[in-house]
Amino acid sequence: MDDLIAELAGVLGEANVFVTPEDQAPFLTDWLGKYHGAARAVIRPGSTAEVAAAMRICARHAAPVVPQGGNTSMSGGATPDETGKAVVLSLARLNSIRDIDAVGNTITVDAGVILAKVQQAADAAGRFFPLSLGAEGSCTIGGNLAANAGGVAVLRYGTMRELTLGLEVVLADGRVWDGLTALRKDNTGYALRDLFIGSEGTLGVITGAVLKLFAQPHARASAFVAVAGAAAALSLLGAVRDRCGDRLTAFEFMTGDCLSLILRHIGDARLPLAAMPQAAVLIELSDQDDEAGLRERLEAALADGIEAGLVLDAAIAQDGAQARAFWRIREGVSEALVREGKAAKHDVSMPVSAMADFVAAADAAVHAVAPGISPIVFGHLGDGNLHYNLLPAEGQDPAAFAALAPELTRVVHDEIGRRRGSISAEHGIGQLRVSEMPRRKAPLELELMHQLKHLLDPAGLLNPGKLLPPSTKN
Amino acid sequence: MDDLIAELAGVLGEANVFVTPEDQAPFLTDWLGKYHGAARAVIRPGSTAEVAAAMRICARHAAPVVPQGGNTSMSGGATPDETGKAVVLSLARLNSIRDIDAVGNTITVDAGVILAKVQQAADAAGRFFPLSLGAEGSCTIGGNLAANAGGVAVLRYGTMRELTLGLEVVLADGRVWDGLTALRKDNTGYALRDLFIGSEGTLGVITGAVLKLFAQPHARASAFVAVAGAAAALSLLGAVRDRCGDRLTAFEFMTGDCLSLILRHIGDARLPLAAMPQAAVLIELSDQDDEAGLRERLEAALADGIEAGLVLDAAIAQDGAQARAFWRIREGVSEALVREGKAAKHDVSMPVSAMADFVAAADAAVHAVAPGISPIVFGHLGDGNLHYNLLPAEGQDPAAFAALAPELTRVVHDEIGRRRGSISAEHGIGQLRVSEMPRRKAPLELELMHQLKHLLDPAGLLNPGKLLPPSTKN
Repeated sequence: MDDLIAELAGVLGEANVFVTPEDQAPFLTDWLGKYHGAARAVIRPGSTAEVAAAMRICARHAAPVVPQGGNTSMSGGATPDETGKAVVLSLARLNSIRDIDAVGNTITVDAGVILAKVQQAADAAGRFFPLSLGAEGSCTIGGNLAANAGGVAVLRYGTMRELTLGLEVVLADGRVWDGLTALRKDNTGYALRDLFIGSEGTLGVITGAVLKLFAQPHARASAFVAVAGAAAALSLLGAVRDRCGDRLTAFEFMTGDCLSLILRHIGDARLPLAAMPQAAVLIELSDQDDEAGLRERLEAALADGIEAGLVLDAAIAQDGAQARAFWRIREGVSEALVREGKAAKHDVSMPVSAMADFVAAADAAVHAVAPGISPIVFGHLGDGNLHYNLLPAEGQDPAAFAALAPELTRVVHDEIGRRRGSISAEHGIGQLRVSEMPRRKAPLELELMHQLKHLLDPAGLLNPGKLLPPSTKN
Repeated sequence: MDDLIAELAGVLGEANVFVTPEDQAPFLTDWLGKYHGAARAVIRPGSTAEVAAAMRICARHAAPVVPQGGNTSMSGGATPDETGKAVVLSLARLNSIRDIDAVGNTITVDAGVILAKVQQAADAAGRFFPLSLGAEGSCTIGGNLAANAGGVAVLRYGTMRELTLGLEVVLADGRVWDGLTALRKDNTGYALRDLFIGSEGTLGVITGAVLKLFAQPHARASAFVAVAGAAAALSLLGAVRDRCGDRLTAFEFMTGDCLSLILRHIGDARLPLAAMPQAAVLIELSDQDDEAGLRERLEAALADGIEAGLVLDAAIAQDGAQARAFWRIREGVSEALVREGKAAKHDVSMPVSAMADFVAAADAAVHAVAPGISPIVFGHLGDGNLHYNLLPAEGQDPAAFAALAPELTRVVHDEIGRRRGSISAEHGIGQLRVSEMPRRKAPLELELMHQLKHLLDPAGLLNPGKLLPPSTKN
């Protein structure tokens, strides 16, 4: 046992320092199965103080540290590299809900708490925590913070950044920044909190957070709507929003090809429309109460949409079971993509008004590279966020498609660049997109990011190889 | 004419470089009349490029730069010190609305645009920009960003930080960071935007911004409600929020002493209640449409409140004129305070659930220091933000009161510290509170802030003496 391992075991107990391949295995491969790394140790501290002690030890030994929550990153953000030098720091044992304040509408949690557990705790206190995404049964709050998670309710409630009031962070040298305040307004200096949120574990290890809670929306109304394409969906979005305001909680777009893929792979998904449309949107409204009034409002908005030629067909959920069936379609997409095989994935955002134009331009650009390629497009239209995925042409050799993938990604991201969009709306940079940063970010912006990184992690030990490409300067 | 002045005049034109006392006067005193400074020059660049050129010149001459918008800071944040070394950089000529995107719900503006002009431009495009505060007719967007402005609609729409998507910033060395993107979601690196927001001009000069727009709320309902005190107001807040959710736009608290002060000084303010209450709240709901439904909802919430003994009396506005009359009371408070004379002002925030307890404890603490002192308390209860102001006891000598003020501030802020609150919820640190920072912030937090300052402004030229106390380290 080397010194580092012995010291870590001394502080955390041997049971919380994994060194065998069997014990380490679950922590070394990302859940998409794309990245496989190696680790000197996987450690599982049980408290903020233990995280701090472990960080001091790793800093002294100059050991890189890879923080890991639920290991559900979509971009390899929590998987160590193959050198085997890193210590994987799992936050899983920091899993307490520290406090819930139903009057102040806040919940204080450890970073390792699973998202679904926070939702449930809020519900039990008669409140609502709105962050909701596919991995909510296994992803952790710390990971949601590190990645500034998005999901299906951003339109109404914002991303993780906007849902967060306070943070507790262990710095690279083991010091603890206690920013665990529950303040809605606090103008007393620089936004340290926002610096750590979205930094993918490269600036510090988040160990706790104070999150916002909301009044529970007891009424919901949902519709599954056929539209001609992204342009019509965008016009419909504007009309629904003007009529429904904040009641609009979700506006999820899927192309017909995306729907076909889902129906092919997900046995219990059923299309609630008479025929396969060119595209569809899943609309959800929510409110404190008055479900009948909400449904009337949705019906009226859709009637306007039919009048205007935007809505070609529509199903309105008559009960919760029908609404869940609509969501089963939308939520089946990730699974369907995995079953179909390797897709070239893009998680892009742009100004909302540029989306219809982008879809047309990106489709044309990828077909110019490779005719027959199949774009599977879905996403959060109201947030300007599309998951623009590409599947091989029918019968195309997987190796040939894999060889084309970088070129396909380049042309998709070029179309994003033309619209001042982002190559990562919600999935983060991680390992997957880090090599693209120099092309997609202005040199000044990269320089400032490198300086911030150097300030908070001068030895470069925190989650190396993620988010930031190697500096060309130092 | 010295070299600095000559060079600035060469780039900006002599007409935009003020050197005489008469020309400079409006820029050297804060609007509360509390701070008076001196300047080597007041410059008025007309574009981002001119700001950048001016910053390069000032950097070369090691001249401190004090950015200034509408000069409405509540904490002396835009007034130069008395040394006369600083260049005051007015953004007033950067006053164009660059773009408005009614589909994407964004507006792109120069930093010098007056807040009311942004509200009007949004309105003309059928959209809504929610930031609203007393100084909106003269404060600028750049100042709102530098101070992370709050105001009366934070409860529903958030502070300026939450209303902002993109920024353009001229750095201390004259380089321009173009972060002027209109993205609702963008996870591609560190939150540079949030670092500049709320930094009070100490990290860079904001020259432009992309702001969020919203659907117009066409329906409103307002009530002026008598309550027994802060505890009852807090219970009422919870009940109204559970019933009305996002419709709740404002929940403004005033004590009876505060109301009396307003009625004494503001000629056209009329109390809409039968008798002067112990305390009152102004409640505003808003929605897309259905004003009758909104008023019914408000009436039902108040009926519940009467039942529960929380609401002692209430007036519901029957039309827009009555609603404006309610707001005239609330908005009269700043003016009333100015007319009454020098108050010891505190702009504090805390967890919402701690507010009633704070008011009782702070009242007791100040009366222990000085019996007879008169707390004038009002604020944004739903945000955990109170303006806790103190007026002299009747007949107290102003000089004696002024001598007591630091001690009064200390005990008020101590009560805030006990509740992990903030000594500046929305007015900023500026000059007014900078000496308190070492006592109120953890050493690690101050150290990180100093490092960030040094990173972005190594020569310490940007708005010196504001926000951050001198470093004890370097």
